[in-house]
Amino acid sequence: MSTSSPPLSSTERTQVRRHSERARTDRQELYAVLDEGRVCHVGVVVDGHPLVMPTGYGRLGDTLYLHGSSANRSMQAAADGIGVCVTVTLLDGLVLARSVFNHSMNYRSAVIFGAARQIEEPAEKLAALRVVTEHLAPGQWEAVRQPTRKELAATMALALPLDEASVKVRSGPPRDGDTPDAELPVWAGVLPIRQVIDEPIPAPDVPDDVDIPEHIRRLVH
Amino acid sequence: MSTSSPPLSSTERTQVRRHSERARTDRQELYAVLDEGRVCHVGVVVDGHPLVMPTGYGRLGDTLYLHGSSANRSMQAAADGIGVCVTVTLLDGLVLARSVFNHSMNYRSAVIFGAARQIEEPAEKLAALRVVTEHLAPGQWEAVRQPTRKELAATMALALPLDEASVKVRSGPPRDGDTPDAELPVWAGVLPIRQVIDEPIPAPDVPDDVDIPEHIRRLVH
Repeated sequence: MSTSSPPLSSTERTQVRRHSERARTDRQELYAVLDEGRVCHVGVVVDGHPLVMPTGYGRLGDTLYLHGSSANRSMQAAADGIGVCVTVTLLDGLVLARSVFNHSMNYRSAVIFGAARQIEEPAEKLAALRVVTEHLAPGQWEAVRQPTRKELAATMALALPLDEASVKVRSGPPRDGDTPDAELPVWAGVLPIRQVIDEPIPAPDVPDDVDIPEHIRRLVH
Repeated sequence: MSTSSPPLSSTERTQVRRHSERARTDRQELYAVLDEGRVCHVGVVVDGHPLVMPTGYGRLGDTLYLHGSSANRSMQAAADGIGVCVTVTLLDGLVLARSVFNHSMNYRSAVIFGAARQIEEPAEKLAALRVVTEHLAPGQWEAVRQPTRKELAATMALALPLDEASVKVRSGPPRDGDTPDAELPVWAGVLPIRQVIDEPIPAPDVPDDVDIPEHIRRLVH
């Protein structure tokens, strides 16, 4: 994929050591993983121990916006500007080989390191919430009631620059075709996995004359 | 759900502080999340910084087995017996409310804290690999070639006791039905999300007379 954006960083900790052929250095591939995922896992160190929490997010340019309650422990810790590690993993398939050893998974994963910045300024926080909301359901921001000042105060938003990141991708069939195992009368291949969105379920208190809007219907697949 | 197994621990760090009504204390619910997930996110502290990596796993009783290469940095760190945090998240839906503030996700997540133990003894390592393999595709262990001594040595398996864990679940419609927002002419509801497994893709070098076995076909849904 050709792009004019700068390549991904290559620091000690973003260097893919295991299966380096799976590493991607194109920034577009980082965007692709982040834009397709819906939940990231935010890792922080609290009292010397790791804490990993699922968190909603969105991306705008080279900034990842994390969204959570101000009571969320990992968000609280991350808001202090300590180092975080944010990982997004998309599972694409189970790779079944002719030997246990060659079993694997097809996946795309992004790992981002950095210090997150807590967004305090109301207009910037509003913009961050917009990114996170539109990430889940494009068109939703304009369709619903926007936050009051009080709601905005109860929400925590963090900004994490996409400066130090790595992307790893495994795809395709098992790699045991050129081993003696290929002679075994054993089936091998991939079970493709994907996430689907089913028919929307209206809240019980939505009036009958309020239809499912087109920007929501479009998400069903 | 009634069960004779001990309830989940309630330590300082497994106490669900945000949305405590979403906390589950039944051990069976921990098993359910772990058994349905396919990838966990393992958090460790390396040089004072958090590192979160997607990892394959399996469960047997009250032990979680983590599987990776001996070159995997988070596995290496975890093998040293330092504290780990292992999180499994199942995304069940997008919760679209009448206000931005009440947007949410339906999910089930399990967070486990503890010190992992590296499994060295070959028979125990073989048993751990069996658990991880059967977790992905039940029946697969007996169907394929089992590991050689050399392959076993190149594989890392860790055991993590399910002693300190929390489970959090959000389900159902948005909670804005009893607010003034309910008067807004805005659609609200849930977009259900699920993972599907599509038709298996045979490896290109599998002979035509080797059919997809029943235990694999059964996974397609």
